[in-house]
Amino acid sequence: MNWQSIKEQLLKFLKDEVEKTGLKKVIVGLSGGLDSAVVAVLCKEAFGKNLTCVMLPSSYSSKSSIDDAKELCEAFDIGYEIVSIAPLLDAYLSNMQENNLRIGNFCARLRMSILYDLSAREGALVIGTSNKSELLLGYGTIFGDMACAMEPLGEMYKTDEFEFARFLNVPLSIVNKKPSADLWEDQSDEEELGFTYKQLDEVMKLLVDEEKTKEELLQMGFDESILNAIETRMKANAFKRQLPKIAKINWS
Amino acid sequence: MNWQSIKEQLLKFLKDEVEKTGLKKVIVGLSGGLDSAVVAVLCKEAFGKNLTCVMLPSSYSSKSSIDDAKELCEAFDIGYEIVSIAPLLDAYLSNMQENNLRIGNFCARLRMSILYDLSAREGALVIGTSNKSELLLGYGTIFGDMACAMEPLGEMYKTDEFEFARFLNVPLSIVNKKPSADLWEDQSDEEELGFTYKQLDEVMKLLVDEEKTKEELLQMGFDESILNAIETRMKANAFKRQLPKIAKINWS
Repeated sequence: MNWQSIKEQLLKFLKDEVEKTGLKKVIVGLSGGLDSAVVAVLCKEAFGKNLTCVMLPSSYSSKSSIDDAKELCEAFDIGYEIVSIAPLLDAYLSNMQENNLRIGNFCARLRMSILYDLSAREGALVIGTSNKSELLLGYGTIFGDMACAMEPLGEMYKTDEFEFARFLNVPLSIVNKKPSADLWEDQSDEEELGFTYKQLDEVMKLLVDEEKTKEELLQMGFDESILNAIETRMKANAFKRQLPKIAKINWS
Repeated sequence: MNWQSIKEQLLKFLKDEVEKTGLKKVIVGLSGGLDSAVVAVLCKEAFGKNLTCVMLPSSYSSKSSIDDAKELCEAFDIGYEIVSIAPLLDAYLSNMQENNLRIGNFCARLRMSILYDLSAREGALVIGTSNKSELLLGYGTIFGDMACAMEPLGEMYKTDEFEFARFLNVPLSIVNKKPSADLWEDQSDEEELGFTYKQLDEVMKLLVDEEKTKEELLQMGFDESILNAIETRMKANAFKRQLPKIAKINWS
């Protein structure tokens, strides 16, 4: 991969798209994970001091997440602030009956609400941190972490992103940890999904980029249960990448 | 207007679109205002007991709003629950420096977060309540009240909606009150905008539906300052009706 060229393309995208809006500043929510680290490093290079980073921990976040995010900010001289979502979450938590999925989605939407509020304070655009693997699978919270003005990593698979992060010198504490939405202690994306990002991305590249059929993949020897699990998620979550449908009216 | 036909078209839209998703239930946030009242009445007819309505007041809501929403529910035999957003708002309010716009948008996003959480509890789809006037103007909160699965009123101007609401027998306490986002006591949409919905819709019907130019409207005698105000809002808020832009990458 020509990572230098890819980096330059993404910097150009960020600068061009922000300039079109007439705004000069951007804001990124830092989780301590890979996606937001890569986006923050790109935004630092594109916008310098006009980047604001915010960490939005809850009482469910891993203790190491904030440390990893801070290490990133120090390494790249990125200013940050920390706004805990715990007081807001506590005010609603008892409604969610210890349902991890509901709590996770609610946390993602609280984070979005605060990030957008701070973006208004700063006159900044919210830069998204979803990668292509997540977006195709719909593995994210609609109107939560999927809410943003633009997605610089939306065409980059997670497995490629690891390589790109090393090229960008993202700290190894972030690159080497297991992917997690960090919605509860020790959550693992791959355990929750039932397949690895490597397995997912291999399938997606063939299904989506090369437009092969599921039957062709089966003939190539791919595991049917994984193909079914991926297909089910893609179909069930396609709505997350669509605008609300508007009723047409025939007025005559 | 053939309101009976329009009602039937919207009921068909709602039933067809919900059926496509495989779900059977819907949920509507009731503000006590016209838009959500009209949507709730339609959903009651389309889905009967499979409609859940939620009122999400804050300490900023008008006292009459809840009463009006309750009157609607009693008149149409609609079940409802009330979830105050006040405790969540209080946990963040001091960050917003008494900025009404920031507080209003934050409240809209808290309401969305709770509505989506309750939709998960119910296995229900969130039905939107934006009308065509608001959507074209971008007069709403992105990822707040604009967040939904579908918009039954998205092709209906506010001024037409008043007539439709009377046809549907929406209580006059709701039909006759001045339009308000109800983000603070005595807020008035029309005062905030600087023009009335009647003025807005006349302009929009010519600009958008009949594709006339601003110059043509000036020649027809429309007020230039109102045209400018409408145009400015439409342009500034066009992003609210678009998906996040994804960076294209040339990998070669």
